[in-house]
Amino acid sequence: MSTTFDYVREGAEIYRRSFSMIRAEADLARFSGAEERLVVRMIHACGMTDLPRDVELSPDFAEIAVKALRDGAPILCDSKMVANGITRARLPAGNKVICTLDDPRVPALARDLNNTRSAAAMEFWRDRLAGSIVVFGNAPTALFRLLEMVHEGAPRPAAVIGIPVGFVGAIESKQTLARQRDLPFVVVHGRRGGSAMAAAAVNALASADE
Amino acid sequence: MSTTFDYVREGAEIYRRSFSMIRAEADLARFSGAEERLVVRMIHACGMTDLPRDVELSPDFAEIAVKALRDGAPILCDSKMVANGITRARLPAGNKVICTLDDPRVPALARDLNNTRSAAAMEFWRDRLAGSIVVFGNAPTALFRLLEMVHEGAPRPAAVIGIPVGFVGAIESKQTLARQRDLPFVVVHGRRGGSAMAAAAVNALASADE
Repeated sequence: MSTTFDYVREGAEIYRRSFSMIRAEADLARFSGAEERLVVRMIHACGMTDLPRDVELSPDFAEIAVKALRDGAPILCDSKMVANGITRARLPAGNKVICTLDDPRVPALARDLNNTRSAAAMEFWRDRLAGSIVVFGNAPTALFRLLEMVHEGAPRPAAVIGIPVGFVGAIESKQTLARQRDLPFVVVHGRRGGSAMAAAAVNALASADE
Repeated sequence: MSTTFDYVREGAEIYRRSFSMIRAEADLARFSGAEERLVVRMIHACGMTDLPRDVELSPDFAEIAVKALRDGAPILCDSKMVANGITRARLPAGNKVICTLDDPRVPALARDLNNTRSAAAMEFWRDRLAGSIVVFGNAPTALFRLLEMVHEGAPRPAAVIGIPVGFVGAIESKQTLARQRDLPFVVVHGRRGGSAMAAAAVNALASADE
């Protein structure tokens, strides 16, 4: 027996209809062009059009992040899921996408630092941090640790996408990021967030194509 | 200048507190042991304790999926993000985790089938479908196509995790899955879902450890 279901099968049309539904429902009035595309794509990744109420960006974030990507900034990711969600074909300068969580030195370093493996993995970002785009979709401890490293004098990233999800430390790490001076950021306040939303943010900043 | 923020740095303690917060807030009364652990971990992946209201499982789903994994069922994933979110150390039988989206034959096949690449990639699941765990966190078209293939006589998976996210086809594909007979399933109705939640479902079924 053959059954055919009735559904839209054309990728470009699915995107077009999805983004149209998002723009019809979501309150995007306070976002500028690049910011608006960013928030639309983050909504697309989570299916929730009420997301904008929790989004906070520094005024310079979108412009600086777009320029950094065009200039070839590496993209440092706190999890492999984030790294895998970034669409390589959208990257404007063959940007490197890096996740150091699997570095074999991480477990021992985590014990030494009394911190999570995600936080320990930040140590191996140091020599690539200057001017980078750093992306957190998973681990509040990693975001906290990055902020500690910057306070301790580590090179400054160009911009921080801070969207860890969850129950312990997520809210607090995002609030802490949003209070920093001179560190362009986007956060999703509250418990929501995650790797898909974080990767979607990079994909939106990487190209204006929809 | 050195700054240390005040946050929980111990991975096991973060999990323990997170799961405790979830169980205190979420209405989990209608779920049995393995189902409850499944829903808790899905909530953990998205940060939203109101998720249970959208969760539907067939009565046999959790038991069958747990047994299939113990018996070595392969895990077929609709996206690399899902595949990357599955914690290999939790798998009870060294289960294979497979995503066929990058198969070089997929783009041409998608054109032939007039469907998305995600749906076309299902063709390369055929010889592994029998008794498998199939996982959808991303593409409604892939879930629809899997159901079409089963109706056309393809081998039956042991259980279906159907949690695609989004605006076009997501709701409908999950409703269609939930109406099937003899295909054990879990879905999250509505637009919510995604790769992290889908991977979390596998991780919960793979091991009772928290």
